[in-house]
Amino acid sequence: MELSVLEIRQAVQNALAEDIGGGDATTLATVPETTMAQAVMCAREPLVVAGLAFAEIAFTELSPAVSIERLARDGQPLKAGELMLRVSGRARTILTAERVALNFVQRLSGIATFTAQFVDAIKETQAQILDTRKTTPGWRRFEKYAVTCGGGKNHRLGLSDMILIKDNHLAALQNEQPNATAAAVARAREKFPKLKIEVEADTLEQAEQAAEAGADIVLLDNMNLIQLRLAVQKIKGRAQTEASGGVNPANVRAIADAGVDFISVGALTHSAHAVDIGLDFET
Amino acid sequence: MELSVLEIRQAVQNALAEDIGGGDATTLATVPETTMAQAVMCAREPLVVAGLAFAEIAFTELSPAVSIERLARDGQPLKAGELMLRVSGRARTILTAERVALNFVQRLSGIATFTAQFVDAIKETQAQILDTRKTTPGWRRFEKYAVTCGGGKNHRLGLSDMILIKDNHLAALQNEQPNATAAAVARAREKFPKLKIEVEADTLEQAEQAAEAGADIVLLDNMNLIQLRLAVQKIKGRAQTEASGGVNPANVRAIADAGVDFISVGALTHSAHAVDIGLDFET
Amino acid sequence: MELSVLEIRQAVQNALAEDIGGGDATTLATVPETTMAQAVMCAREPLVVAGLAFAEIAFTELSPAVSIERLARDGQPLKAGELMLRVSGRARTILTAERVALNFVQRLSGIATFTAQFVDAIKETQAQILDTRKTTPGWRRFEKYAVTCGGGKNHRLGLSDMILIKDNHLAALQNEQPNATAAAVARAREKFPKLKIEVEADTLEQAEQAAEAGADIVLLDNMNLIQLRLAVQKIKGRAQTEASGGVNPANVRAIADAGVDFISVGALTHSAHAVDIGLDFET
Amino acid sequence: MELSVLEIRQAVQNALAEDIGGGDATTLATVPETTMAQAVMCAREPLVVAGLAFAEIAFTELSPAVSIERLARDGQPLKAGELMLRVSGRARTILTAERVALNFVQRLSGIATFTAQFVDAIKETQAQILDTRKTTPGWRRFEKYAVTCGGGKNHRLGLSDMILIKDNHLAALQNEQPNATAAAVARAREKFPKLKIEVEADTLEQAEQAAEAGADIVLLDNMNLIQLRLAVQKIKGRAQTEASGGVNPANVRAIADAGVDFISVGALTHSAHAVDIGLDFET
Amino acid sequence: MELSVLEIRQAVQNALAEDIGGGDATTLATVPETTMAQAVMCAREPLVVAGLAFAEIAFTELSPAVSIERLARDGQPLKAGELMLRVSGRARTILTAERVALNFVQRLSGIATFTAQFVDAIKETQAQILDTRKTTPGWRRFEKYAVTCGGGKNHRLGLSDMILIKDNHLAALQNEQPNATAAAVARAREKFPKLKIEVEADTLEQAEQAAEAGADIVLLDNMNLIQLRLAVQKIKGRAQTEASGGVNPANVRAIADAGVDFISVGALTHSAHAVDIGLDFET
Amino acid sequence: MELSVLEIRQAVQNALAEDIGGGDATTLATVPETTMAQAVMCAREPLVVAGLAFAEIAFTELSPAVSIERLARDGQPLKAGELMLRVSGRARTILTAERVALNFVQRLSGIATFTAQFVDAIKETQAQILDTRKTTPGWRRFEKYAVTCGGGKNHRLGLSDMILIKDNHLAALQNEQPNATAAAVARAREKFPKLKIEVEADTLEQAEQAAEAGADIVLLDNMNLIQLRLAVQKIKGRAQTEASGGVNPANVRAIADAGVDFISVGALTHSAHAVDIGLDFET
Repeated sequence: MELSVLEIRQAVQNALAEDIGGGDATTLATVPETTMAQAVMCAREPLVVAGLAFAEIAFTELSPAVSIERLARDGQPLKAGELMLRVSGRARTILTAERVALNFVQRLSGIATFTAQFVDAIKETQAQILDTRKTTPGWRRFEKYAVTCGGGKNHRLGLSDMILIKDNHLAALQNEQPNATAAAVARAREKFPKLKIEVEADTLEQAEQAAEAGADIVLLDNMNLIQLRLAVQKIKGRAQTEASGGVNPANVRAIADAGVDFISVGALTHSAHAVDIGLDFET
Repeated sequence: MELSVLEIRQAVQNALAEDIGGGDATTLATVPETTMAQAVMCAREPLVVAGLAFAEIAFTELSPAVSIERLARDGQPLKAGELMLRVSGRARTILTAERVALNFVQRLSGIATFTAQFVDAIKETQAQILDTRKTTPGWRRFEKYAVTCGGGKNHRLGLSDMILIKDNHLAALQNEQPNATAAAVARAREKFPKLKIEVEADTLEQAEQAAEAGADIVLLDNMNLIQLRLAVQKIKGRAQTEASGGVNPANVRAIADAGVDFISVGALTHSAHAVDIGLDFET
Repeated sequence: MELSVLEIRQAVQNALAEDIGGGDATTLATVPETTMAQAVMCAREPLVVAGLAFAEIAFTELSPAVSIERLARDGQPLKAGELMLRVSGRARTILTAERVALNFVQRLSGIATFTAQFVDAIKETQAQILDTRKTTPGWRRFEKYAVTCGGGKNHRLGLSDMILIKDNHLAALQNEQPNATAAAVARAREKFPKLKIEVEADTLEQAEQAAEAGADIVLLDNMNLIQLRLAVQKIKGRAQTEASGGVNPANVRAIADAGVDFISVGALTHSAHAVDIGLDFET
Repeated sequence: MELSVLEIRQAVQNALAEDIGGGDATTLATVPETTMAQAVMCAREPLVVAGLAFAEIAFTELSPAVSIERLARDGQPLKAGELMLRVSGRARTILTAERVALNFVQRLSGIATFTAQFVDAIKETQAQILDTRKTTPGWRRFEKYAVTCGGGKNHRLGLSDMILIKDNHLAALQNEQPNATAAAVARAREKFPKLKIEVEADTLEQAEQAAEAGADIVLLDNMNLIQLRLAVQKIKGRAQTEASGGVNPANVRAIADAGVDFISVGALTHSAHAVDIGLDFET
Repeated sequence: MELSVLEIRQAVQNALAEDIGGGDATTLATVPETTMAQAVMCAREPLVVAGLAFAEIAFTELSPAVSIERLARDGQPLKAGELMLRVSGRARTILTAERVALNFVQRLSGIATFTAQFVDAIKETQAQILDTRKTTPGWRRFEKYAVTCGGGKNHRLGLSDMILIKDNHLAALQNEQPNATAAAVARAREKFPKLKIEVEADTLEQAEQAAEAGADIVLLDNMNLIQLRLAVQKIKGRAQTEASGGVNPANVRAIADAGVDFISVGALTHSAHAVDIGLDFET
Repeated sequence: MELSVLEIRQAVQNALAEDIGGGDATTLATVPETTMAQAVMCAREPLVVAGLAFAEIAFTELSPAVSIERLARDGQPLKAGELMLRVSGRARTILTAERVALNFVQRLSGIATFTAQFVDAIKETQAQILDTRKTTPGWRRFEKYAVTCGGGKNHRLGLSDMILIKDNHLAALQNEQPNATAAAVARAREKFPKLKIEVEADTLEQAEQAAEAGADIVLLDNMNLIQLRLAVQKIKGRAQTEASGGVNPANVRAIADAGVDFISVGALTHSAHAVDIGLDFET
């Protein structure tokens, strides 16, 4: 996932409009137009940085005269107290853009930081941490980008760039087809020859059917460690394997040790919380 | 905060476009166009509902032929297993819109549920729980709406509908004005006669200055309980009081008992996590 | 009211597109691409300037090579014949952008000029001139900005940043509540604790009820001078007062002398006319 | 000029968003959700109606459940007290949309009413009243539509649908070409063979040159009645004639009697004021 | 590729605005508002239909009162003279929307018709016809949909849903890596584990390297039939094969007979021409 | 037709978003961020250039650090092998923008090249080649611009800038009016006094009626050469003439020799194909 300047600028402009509304009344009333200031964005807890470009554009979009010094880069782990970015310019600009800049960086760094916990926990295994489609509507690309800052990999971007056959998809074919899984994979392969096909399996039997049907990847959903291990053994060499369901930092290493290729974690984007970042005035 | 159908539809359309991209390949390949289905949205943990209109529109926007039965209303507390909404129509429509519908309702209900914890904790006191501007860019109105579903009240929508003078605003006036607080309040009153004025105070002395200067509300930021109590006593009758900083469900009752009128909680929107809601097929 | 460069640029881009359509056929056909020119924007009647940034951006948006010299500033009163802005660059750019630049500045300066008549008339009184929501749809922020250029203050920006209870709002409560005004104020205070509350009163009795109910401001609508004076006396110290209805430059001073805090004037934005401004070529 | 439902709906949606912002706080707090109401839009001074579709859509866009009865049609002259439109539905919807509905209809009817004064004044002559490009940016199509409601005709929509050669266009050719007017007309004819060509003339000599050069229309700018009459005599049969500059309801008949085909009036759109229209509740 | 009603409506609205501009002057002036009409869209040459929904929406978007009867379906081959769609309603609506409706259907059916020539030519072989990214900017999804109406399959939608390594990508790695192809495939696999990887090969040696490196598909670019056949033999079983470069209806069968799995054809979208379709009035 | 930088940038941004989606996975995975490159856009067949600004902006929009050297200008004929534009900068930028840049220039140059064939064929006659409204929806202005690059002239931009009365318009008046053509022209002249009026004629008799009715231009549709010649003779001096229907490069000279003023050719925009242009890396 790579973000373009265009989409970042668009999101920041919308956020500024959303927050500023009819003007930053407080700043306009109390801060003289010519007062200059300098401030630093600072980590107030250990974190992995993501989204500095959003902060930078929040300031420069309001006033091109602002100057920015980058003190860290996306993907970098910081300790509490370490600095991320210095901004200098009119005090009004800095005060008015402050909240929008922080809102972006705190949320995206929150996701990167949470992702890094999972990635670190399995770093000597062969498995990779993946995100899901459980993202904030309107923020999917930003959140998937933050996952990569934390060392995770991206699962499909949306419904059109991969086939993922779940139980509800199979239900419709069950009546007419003796082997619904095989039928579904065949249809998908025929209609979308360029897409990878993943099939969800809740049991060992379903996992075997999926591999048999020629799935590129088998999604082992909500299996316990014993089932996972057996499923990986059965399928190995025929398809890749992915574990999902109830993954947390405490159990992710055991899941990776079961031998799966991928572990997908909805919590990366649906349950990360914003990390604490402040903007401190130096003058 | 009231959401209009227009803005909900706009957000849902964008979310559908974001997720569907070039089409829901899996569903198109595996589910026959004429297959009908029925599914219910179901709470998988205790929660307070928010955002059902987003889910409803996610389905109907994809296909007007879908029919929806509302089984709960926004603001209603549900137990695990209770139902929120039933959708009937083409299986393709339901499967393609499912994730978008859930992404909205899980997040917004997450905020409502978290807010309700704070509101319940202080329900026999005179204090009110307020949100902040620490919202997801692009989602401020939705998140502030969810706060009201949980029983919270809304602080200012953005920078233009209230004056909130913080230390950084005062810093610029400090050099030229013996009493920066009084000067700032006077300027704000002169320039924006129709807006309420709130002044942040970190110490009792600052709180006194704010009340003296004629602030409508004094924001008691990061004070301990003893300071809070003293500040409320000093100011009572001259201005309303608001506590903020490090509020959590465990300490919120003690803060309310200190006598403040409002308690503002950034975590409501920056650290709520999505609650677990499923879409179960009945056919 | 402060306008951002973003919103000005957006409005100017739309205006240029609206006017230019498929291209400025006349200029393209008759003016050589390399011809340079210089022109000045000139007041052709006495006026108060507003909106020069719109003119500047109209030229620079069409061609960054244009150079602009500001000869006046927004809010400045000019005599007939005085200059506002000089533009130098390709003759094509200047000719194509001319009408859009003038359309913005003539209208906004028209509002500023009309506002200044009211403001000047009451300048030794304690009252302030306010605008209303009777603005051109799509132009509210621009028109409210022009009001401030003329020395007026802004009433609420829209329906969400203040409570203004009118007779039609009370009508619904009349049946069930002995004192509808008190009930309405109480409900508004409960639901929107952070907003100021204004109540419209057409009679002295209603004005008294509004003050009694705890309104922050009482709107004395369409009262004659005697009623106004009495109402102000009754309410003073309990609430601020605002006069409205049929205000014009001839009667505004007498209204201010009645002692009200605010005088709101719909005509500022619904009946100002464009002032005469020309673009004269110097070369 | 014909307005499409699409563009009206777009403008109304933007206007509603601009006014409603975070919600109509007053109405939400004071008016019960189930209260029904009925109101009529009523002329409070004599006027010519324009823009009823905007009002209708303002109500229905907020709530499809509203029902509308049209009591007049665009272009119809009304006396004070006559009704234009009746709206029935939830009181909340009507109160929240009221101002937007009125803002559109008052402004557009203001233009139609002002136009009708000019049209009526010349109704037994051969001349036609035209608008200009001196319109509110973003409102050109709406304002030109209102002009036709008042019986006026539309001049060019923008810079691309007609050639209008003014003195500043000729200035650039003056040095190199003995007869700049002839050269300009020839170039325009060559480059845009499908567009009509109008040439501005400030003197009889220029008018003769324009006709000689083959202009389709000669714009007689700021001429007195004697000059106008002579110019029309000279040109008749070779080109159409249009008068402009300082036209008002008092002098327009004399100008028409000079024999011109068209009279263009900037004031129609730059100096019309909003007419007085009210929304009266019947229940 | 599946098109949503939302995106079709958006494109049609834009197209109507683009064509109608200030109104369909001819129709407004000559056709009475109440005249009704009925017309049929008719193939004037043999063709494969694509895009009927665009035509339908062009009419209904202008006036919901129009009624439409579908006489064919997308993907259906028609002979000259056969009918596609009947529209009944106001003559004005039909005349104003006619050109937009035809512009969409003629272009999309042109692509479907051209695609069908390729698909028919290879129908007894194992190969499939694919489109490319050589589409009209803004129309990619529409054109790829039209390709499927003609029986073709879609190659990747854009740069993010598949890896396609070309010579220019390899050039950058050449200096530092003895085997650039292997390095590139490994990096792509590591960074985007969920995407299929295709590698372009211009020679047999490169094809062998690509297969060796583990490419999922090898793109045999601009090879003659003998090379193609050899490449397919070498690679079979290890990767899928795709031919591209200079494919036309005359040579496509020979290329398919060489044994490739896919044949991608840029001309489907960059060189199809609009087919002849008319709108004939029945009344 | 003149294109503004604004609209080109908008179209290019949309095209980049359409193509890049979640990021150019191949380039991100295989090309180091710091690798620099230089490439030239080169004609691979004889062509007339159109749309270089689109290509330039495709590169610079992705990265302002790219530098561009223009080696040709729009409207210039090039031989195979001649260069159009050189781009230098990061290899990633050039590779990611390549396809979008080419898609624009190949299509627009295709139209310019095809137009030039018609223009060259009639260059010693008095006739001019015109385009039509048979353009790609969303691309009308771009395609009409490309026509002028090829030496053609633009017919009306859309439905509002000229009157063109066709048989279907006349049909509605036929019943009530003895001379429908005269009635239609009179109505159009009355309602839209500033627009040129063209009338379609399929027979000599209709052509005579159109001239008689005072049409500015008579459109001689689908007439053979003998009819054309007779029609021109009949009408000459009263109206301009335009031929249309089945025009191709082989017969256009004979049509011009029949004496018409204009020849309109739908194929210019509905059947031009993309010309072959490559982007060759020099480093």
